[in-house]
Amino acid sequence: MSVTIKTIAKDLNLAISTVSKALGDSHEISPETKKRIFEYAKRLDYVPNAYAGSLKKRKTANIAIIIPEVADSFFSLAINGIESVAQKKGFHVIVYLTHEDQLKEQSILHQLKNGRVDGLLLSVSSGAFSNDHIKYLLNAKIPVVFFDRSCDDIDANKVLTNDFESGYLAAELLINKKCKKISFLSLSDDLSIINQRLKGYKKALVDHKISIDENLIIHCTNDEISNHAKVSKLFQSADKPDAIIGSVEKLTMLIYAVCFDLKVSIPRDLKVIGFSSLDIASFLNPSLTTITQPAFEIGKTAATILFQELEKNSSEPKRTIIIPSKLIERGSTK
Amino acid sequence: MSVTIKTIAKDLNLAISTVSKALGDSHEISPETKKRIFEYAKRLDYVPNAYAGSLKKRKTANIAIIIPEVADSFFSLAINGIESVAQKKGFHVIVYLTHEDQLKEQSILHQLKNGRVDGLLLSVSSGAFSNDHIKYLLNAKIPVVFFDRSCDDIDANKVLTNDFESGYLAAELLINKKCKKISFLSLSDDLSIINQRLKGYKKALVDHKISIDENLIIHCTNDEISNHAKVSKLFQSADKPDAIIGSVEKLTMLIYAVCFDLKVSIPRDLKVIGFSSLDIASFLNPSLTTITQPAFEIGKTAATILFQELEKNSSEPKRTIIIPSKLIERGSTK
Repeated sequence: MSVTIKTIAKDLNLAISTVSKALGDSHEISPETKKRIFEYAKRLDYVPNAYAGSLKKRKTANIAIIIPEVADSFFSLAINGIESVAQKKGFHVIVYLTHEDQLKEQSILHQLKNGRVDGLLLSVSSGAFSNDHIKYLLNAKIPVVFFDRSCDDIDANKVLTNDFESGYLAAELLINKKCKKISFLSLSDDLSIINQRLKGYKKALVDHKISIDENLIIHCTNDEISNHAKVSKLFQSADKPDAIIGSVEKLTMLIYAVCFDLKVSIPRDLKVIGFSSLDIASFLNPSLTTITQPAFEIGKTAATILFQELEKNSSEPKRTIIIPSKLIERGSTK
Repeated sequence: MSVTIKTIAKDLNLAISTVSKALGDSHEISPETKKRIFEYAKRLDYVPNAYAGSLKKRKTANIAIIIPEVADSFFSLAINGIESVAQKKGFHVIVYLTHEDQLKEQSILHQLKNGRVDGLLLSVSSGAFSNDHIKYLLNAKIPVVFFDRSCDDIDANKVLTNDFESGYLAAELLINKKCKKISFLSLSDDLSIINQRLKGYKKALVDHKISIDENLIIHCTNDEISNHAKVSKLFQSADKPDAIIGSVEKLTMLIYAVCFDLKVSIPRDLKVIGFSSLDIASFLNPSLTTITQPAFEIGKTAATILFQELEKNSSEPKRTIIIPSKLIERGSTK
């Protein structure tokens, strides 16, 4: 049988309201009575009903993580980082997957207007055509912290990595390896991180007097079969690249898959750099040169900032924190 | 400004209780009035307060997933499977990570007694010394469905894979490749799945008249550095194995790491089979022979059974569903 405030009140011969106030640490109740109630509640293993409490305090002790997918090393490590902070704060983490579907993202955010969570950690899906659903939450005073993928035109706290610089460094490494035709696999044109990585790539080409060939910039989507076809076509064209950059992990794995199918030898025929936080990049065949994002750190920092917002309940100026990624050279660019 | 039942009642010139009952689809309210209220609520974009509703109905529309870790292909794919069902049901998925720490698992389950979730999907941590915290929830009529890792002595619905058979098949494949000294990396002696895999391995040895050498069964823990030391020592011993089975994904990756450090050549010096759902197993160096678990399917089935329990609210006999794993031969056992 579950222990309620009623049980405690009856056993201690106190009014229910007294017990309720004492457990809420009200100043109306004397320290002696509080101590007596706390100790008894502890002995009975009493846990307050989450919803009764939340209704009153408007605090759910829930935060939401909204991410495109979980089977990706960046996001699974970011969840670890977020959870490491949330668990210390006694908060519960509700995970929502958008599968890169903006309509799903809108529907999820719509449901979160009703006070199920105190705040959100959001990494937006690709294919964003509107930000109204995010603005609505912010207007409703539900804090949103962006991590990794953010919306440029929304004023909120953001924890990002140096995407432009990373794109630049990736392209420059390939240029230094004498590559002339460097392809870039883009996920979505309207995703800020991809745009920044692409801009960095283009700037490196321009700085090194290599003309930008739009045919080498492949616009992938969420459709794996069509992506595979696009990359296969590229690798079989007369104008095929001698190097390629995968702008997200799944596109990098796609490059390996297509090379395997078409017997393209990495790094001999094609040098490869991937944006990825995979800890087994070293054990791939060949080992993968990566732009390794500080996934755990980004998650941890984003959660820390969200809790600062929740605790201060403030309207301080919003910050953008940049945690740099690292270029790690391995076999795929040898 | 948020829309409440009050707003709707005022605008439509109805009693608050009428609106509340109509939105709760009460038979006390006429279909015409209900229709009027529903349409108006829809127009105003009204979302019921999650907690007010849940307090009354004792339904939270939350389910919990409790898993050892998220940065593991089995668990991230299982989350995808669970979420695919939960999203259709309009449920929210709270993810808890135990990091293989039984005390953390106990503390998480303790918090869930208070009605934050309607049911649990649980894959227990290793190092389990007591099941009381799970029994407590079951006694409190909060449904628990085990997936992958379960407790033998608890009567609950379970969705598992054929661990004994998989361990047997892995060992038998290595025996057929003329391996004589087959090592087994175990994670924890008290985890049912590992025990079953180990039993299958032992049975295959016995059936093929190979004596069981306890020195080749390595008991790893949650301490990565000590695991690395144990496996390094094994590979450098006079009595080193010619094949090895990693009973979970992270131990398989550890085998690759130690082989890399010690320049042990896979499969020439050592054949390797790993329990893993990694979709990039084909791209490892060498490609990894795996026991591939149906992770997505296990998650999906476990969630489906949990919702059946929630909907029927029944005390039907508990089932154990076995979804078989597949042995996929690749380069590491060539």
